[in-house]
Amino acid sequence: MILGGGFGGIGAAKKLSKSDVDVVLVDGHDYHTFQPLLYQVATGLLDQPAVGHPIRDLFHKQDNVRVHQDRVTGIDLEAREVRFAELEPERYDYLVLALGAEVNYFGVEGAAEHAFPLYTLADAVRLKDHVLERWEAADRKPELADDGALNMVVVGGGPTGVETAGAMAELYRGVFRSDYPDVPPEQARILLVEASPEIFAMFKPEIRLYTEHALAERGVEVLTGEVVESVSPQRVTLKSGTVLSAHTLVWGAGLQGNELVRSLGLELERGNRLAVDEELRLAQHPEVYAVGDIAAITDAKTDQVLPQLGSVALQSGEHAGETIAHRVAGKETKPFKYHDKGTMATIGRGAAVVQMLGGKTMKGKAAQAAWGTVHLALLPTNQDRAKAVVDWAGAGLTHQRSGRIRVET
Amino acid sequence: MILGGGFGGIGAAKKLSKSDVDVVLVDGHDYHTFQPLLYQVATGLLDQPAVGHPIRDLFHKQDNVRVHQDRVTGIDLEAREVRFAELEPERYDYLVLALGAEVNYFGVEGAAEHAFPLYTLADAVRLKDHVLERWEAADRKPELADDGALNMVVVGGGPTGVETAGAMAELYRGVFRSDYPDVPPEQARILLVEASPEIFAMFKPEIRLYTEHALAERGVEVLTGEVVESVSPQRVTLKSGTVLSAHTLVWGAGLQGNELVRSLGLELERGNRLAVDEELRLAQHPEVYAVGDIAAITDAKTDQVLPQLGSVALQSGEHAGETIAHRVAGKETKPFKYHDKGTMATIGRGAAVVQMLGGKTMKGKAAQAAWGTVHLALLPTNQDRAKAVVDWAGAGLTHQRSGRIRVET
Repeated sequence: MILGGGFGGIGAAKKLSKSDVDVVLVDGHDYHTFQPLLYQVATGLLDQPAVGHPIRDLFHKQDNVRVHQDRVTGIDLEAREVRFAELEPERYDYLVLALGAEVNYFGVEGAAEHAFPLYTLADAVRLKDHVLERWEAADRKPELADDGALNMVVVGGGPTGVETAGAMAELYRGVFRSDYPDVPPEQARILLVEASPEIFAMFKPEIRLYTEHALAERGVEVLTGEVVESVSPQRVTLKSGTVLSAHTLVWGAGLQGNELVRSLGLELERGNRLAVDEELRLAQHPEVYAVGDIAAITDAKTDQVLPQLGSVALQSGEHAGETIAHRVAGKETKPFKYHDKGTMATIGRGAAVVQMLGGKTMKGKAAQAAWGTVHLALLPTNQDRAKAVVDWAGAGLTHQRSGRIRVET
Repeated sequence: MILGGGFGGIGAAKKLSKSDVDVVLVDGHDYHTFQPLLYQVATGLLDQPAVGHPIRDLFHKQDNVRVHQDRVTGIDLEAREVRFAELEPERYDYLVLALGAEVNYFGVEGAAEHAFPLYTLADAVRLKDHVLERWEAADRKPELADDGALNMVVVGGGPTGVETAGAMAELYRGVFRSDYPDVPPEQARILLVEASPEIFAMFKPEIRLYTEHALAERGVEVLTGEVVESVSPQRVTLKSGTVLSAHTLVWGAGLQGNELVRSLGLELERGNRLAVDEELRLAQHPEVYAVGDIAAITDAKTDQVLPQLGSVALQSGEHAGETIAHRVAGKETKPFKYHDKGTMATIGRGAAVVQMLGGKTMKGKAAQAAWGTVHLALLPTNQDRAKAVVDWAGAGLTHQRSGRIRVET
């Protein structure tokens, strides 16, 4: 059984296609989320179905997979049984835990209630709707803009924070300038807050410098060495004492294991992640694999815990699938090895950064092209790719973001 | 001032682009809805932004238009003033009423609570989400399918009902058969209920026959001469006494003037529509124009009240805009003349019907091509057209409907 239809769960199921096993894949949603592009949904650049793909669609040609949409309510590791909100409890021979994580607010007061995370497609839609709502509200009542209705604080100087701040800045300084010609730019500030002394700590200094410059060019104000203390709907208070007037706080910092993980009675690693052996199995339950954001996977090369990234999730999921296939067939299994294909991020149109494993870097338009190619290749179907290309081309040629509508249902 | 950003309001505003007037356009949403394609959103064929286009986007190059999103709460025709939920009250010299209508349930018990109309983009998303939810629920608990969870009753044998029933049937018999291979087709019935003796009363007999055949081919059961008496969440009761087990009732029959129209203290035509003179003005208030679904517009040629269609809304809106432009410039005005470009509808892939004004008809693939060309031409921007083409091509080539995801926010 596979719990979770993200990169990890899909990767595992795909690798079991030729195996003599019955796969049951359960996810809380009916779609697979392409998480690296969520910020593009939040900024109106991509439509929801370009980033959320029907899970069932991915298994039309794989007869040994049954898909269900349901919520997992408990796992009995001893009895090897999973309980669900609606489905009957189901036993398993092998289990792949690929349920992802949840946002970690590190105890910041008011964050759980008022911050906008960007971990799920629903998060992205909620953030987009909130931003559009604030701009329309300030259009009706300009005094709201004086109060910071259009200001946005983005927390976290990693890829999520930087990409979101950059894309929001292009939305703010681009199409919103035409949409709301009466709003002065100084009433629509975007502030990127990072606790450590610099943003993009995982990148080389030349990339950091380029990124800082690209953000500044787009009007993003970067505050490093600053920590958020509390959040209310209209104010963000920093530990330094600064109070920022902003009706939107985007939380791009930190994940943790969810309630289910904590309920398993297992010892957990930092961030409540599940400890796994080199084959990605739980030590006491070798029939259970944990992959993706839910697991603390050690990189064999560096002996460091791998970051919670889509590429790690996909590769670890595929490894779990392959390993189970081998075990079922009585073949030898191998320890997991992560193939680092480099790190990339987009700050805005024509401004991306790529850092390869060997230390080679790319910046600007070439990096943007590489970024686009890699992300298009990762999208699950040709139709998704075509959609993304139409959206990106439309945004590039006409500077429009056709997804900037708010449909209240 | 223009109230409403549908075909009528947009048409009026566009025709005032070269006029020396300040246009204020107010709509309750931030998007213009391409209503003729709502059924394609409801059936997962098109994404929301292909059918809902940002209103502000349409006026970037028209400096004399200010757009606001707000709800109209009242109109004082004597004081020539409009009141809003949030905006300050605003006076007008000319007013274009283009607020559309609301669904008329003709007093059917339970319909307002349980039926799914298809008049707004939110309606389309809600219907899609509901259908997807019922299929997933029946996948978890097959006894729900026995209870009619997957059966659907579509009320109304006009274009909305026929197009929706046809598109749903292709969804049911197409991709859902791959998505839910365990569901037998007889547990997923689609019934089209029409009160009069035949569907598509506005079309010639040859088109009616073709349509009945195309629907039957797709597994749609047509019940004519039947009237819905009451609706509960899981049952539809007909006046004939028949009780249908169906968890979904789509209401594709009838519109009426909304509360605002009724509050104006004016004499109303059938369906609570506003009476207008040949220039589309209110008799007692010649500075107020009513266009689109809100108005009872008499066709000069036939002396009949025109149907509530997008083409009537667009043409009447354009006429109001032109007429105001002429009045402001001191030029002569003309009575409204509707140019009937024919009626068209799509039953499914390769199966459309077209009836031209002169009586010429088209059926099948040729009609489908004509339908596609006309609808693409009507979409507001090239990007919207490209999106629709990608979605249609994707659906045609791979039989996929990538919009069939349910994002709960």
